[in-house]
Amino acid sequence: MSLLTVGSVAFDAIETPFGKTDKIIGGAATYISLAASMYQKEQKIVAVVGDDFPQEMINKLQNRGVDTEGLQIKQGEKSFFWSGKYHNDMNTRDTLITELNVLENFDPLIPDNYQGTEYLMLGNLTPKVQTTVIGRLKQRPKLIAMDTMNFWMDIAYDDLRETLKLVDLLIINDEEARQLSKVSSLVTASRIIRDMGPKYLIIKKGEHGALLFHEDKIFVAPALPIEEVFDPTGAGDSFAGGFMGYISQTNDISFENMKRALIAGSATASFCVEKFGTQRLEEISQEDLQKRIQQFVELANFEMTYQLA
Amino acid sequence: MSLLTVGSVAFDAIETPFGKTDKIIGGAATYISLAASMYQKEQKIVAVVGDDFPQEMINKLQNRGVDTEGLQIKQGEKSFFWSGKYHNDMNTRDTLITELNVLENFDPLIPDNYQGTEYLMLGNLTPKVQTTVIGRLKQRPKLIAMDTMNFWMDIAYDDLRETLKLVDLLIINDEEARQLSKVSSLVTASRIIRDMGPKYLIIKKGEHGALLFHEDKIFVAPALPIEEVFDPTGAGDSFAGGFMGYISQTNDISFENMKRALIAGSATASFCVEKFGTQRLEEISQEDLQKRIQQFVELANFEMTYQLA
Repeated sequence: MSLLTVGSVAFDAIETPFGKTDKIIGGAATYISLAASMYQKEQKIVAVVGDDFPQEMINKLQNRGVDTEGLQIKQGEKSFFWSGKYHNDMNTRDTLITELNVLENFDPLIPDNYQGTEYLMLGNLTPKVQTTVIGRLKQRPKLIAMDTMNFWMDIAYDDLRETLKLVDLLIINDEEARQLSKVSSLVTASRIIRDMGPKYLIIKKGEHGALLFHEDKIFVAPALPIEEVFDPTGAGDSFAGGFMGYISQTNDISFENMKRALIAGSATASFCVEKFGTQRLEEISQEDLQKRIQQFVELANFEMTYQLA
Repeated sequence: MSLLTVGSVAFDAIETPFGKTDKIIGGAATYISLAASMYQKEQKIVAVVGDDFPQEMINKLQNRGVDTEGLQIKQGEKSFFWSGKYHNDMNTRDTLITELNVLENFDPLIPDNYQGTEYLMLGNLTPKVQTTVIGRLKQRPKLIAMDTMNFWMDIAYDDLRETLKLVDLLIINDEEARQLSKVSSLVTASRIIRDMGPKYLIIKKGEHGALLFHEDKIFVAPALPIEEVFDPTGAGDSFAGGFMGYISQTNDISFENMKRALIAGSATASFCVEKFGTQRLEEISQEDLQKRIQQFVELANFEMTYQLA
């Protein structure tokens, strides 16, 4: 079953304690599509770039099975650009530059042959654009997932609440969950947020793993314990991409399969942070991925039938 | 196989955002023994109290299979007393009062019939006392585990390094691991700390679960996601007690069984924080425990055989 991703395709300039980059390829939809392509060979993308965006990257996406008909190229305009600097702890960062450019008036047009897509991943974008996309799909996808960020909670809270009513799964980090729910306990937050719309909620906790909530069920996925994160940019999107790639490829939205998808997402994200930008996602093989998933199995699984003492 | 616990048996006065207690029973060895008794019916304890310590609690320990011959009762002296206040986030606390009393000159005498104990748990104490205990055991236990805290790293670092050379397993929290290793990455810290002596290391991360390191193997145990922690006092000791109770009762120190012991410890600790002091540990039944362990199984386990896409 195919996966449609909507989100930014852009340029980033990143500075971490380990070094800095010039303008490199970034954007939520780029990371999501690359990550999902590890599992899913039939993808579509809706995004917008300027004429400064390299055809080479578009070709790369196509080679990974991404239909790019929905990628608008605006002649005479520039792609979205973000520049940021991570602090020493890698958990916080300062945004140095945000140039919206083509994103400012992004109208997410859905090509006709995208209709009928079963899985939809809404990358971090203006809530209104996310809502528009859902409205333009003639048939409701089997699973609609979305990402968002604190920025939209600050400046477009009401719009965000409207979008939340329309989605099945929200994927956010712990800070965002606390801000959205206005409580500090993540378990309490998970109930408050699911009352806003999404039946499923994933809370990402960085090095502490991720939590999946649905009804009265909870699953805890570990993060891979690593010596150091080289560049966290795109880790959240790689997680979402791996998750949705796995879910859409297996076409099974049971809780048990979502657990596996969470591990697939965690494994994909664990590669992303090993190098700058999308570099690592582009070079890992299926064998690398299989080994990494096996590491997660050993990391988290145990067999225990407790006998009364 | 029997378990010997050495540590404080004491009084605490606790204040949390949910309320405060008068002087209640506390102490590392108290929590450890109560927690271990959920799994292990053959325990011994080496500790010291004053004549102010209630016989009722000693009886309770005995009723749970704890041989208290090694519990010294100092006539005319007072038991160790600690008073602390937790901040709103429950992760930090201020110590309000520390009265060492009988602990000041604690000489950990080992009764003859304690010799030959296969499992030793050294609760948080002066490193010198911990070293003394090991020296007084004529036969080396099958597994020696110890807890410690940042306080000893500050004032008795060299002594602590000597003790670390003698133990198999160190159980500490993430902050302590960072202070002891002087690095921030827990994976790097785990290597540095294991180079100091212990072949096994458990790093507790509170609400984020716990990590077990041995050779090149890592296991990640989740914490039970809960709405709120009522009182964190004793959670670390309950974890250690549950772990050592399980390990000693099953008498199997393989990595696979240590995984199960980590879950046993996590389950036991998850009860401890539900009420003030030792109250919850005293009232839970074997059925409660069995259900809780099953919750951990559902929380962490997944079945995944990844097929190449």
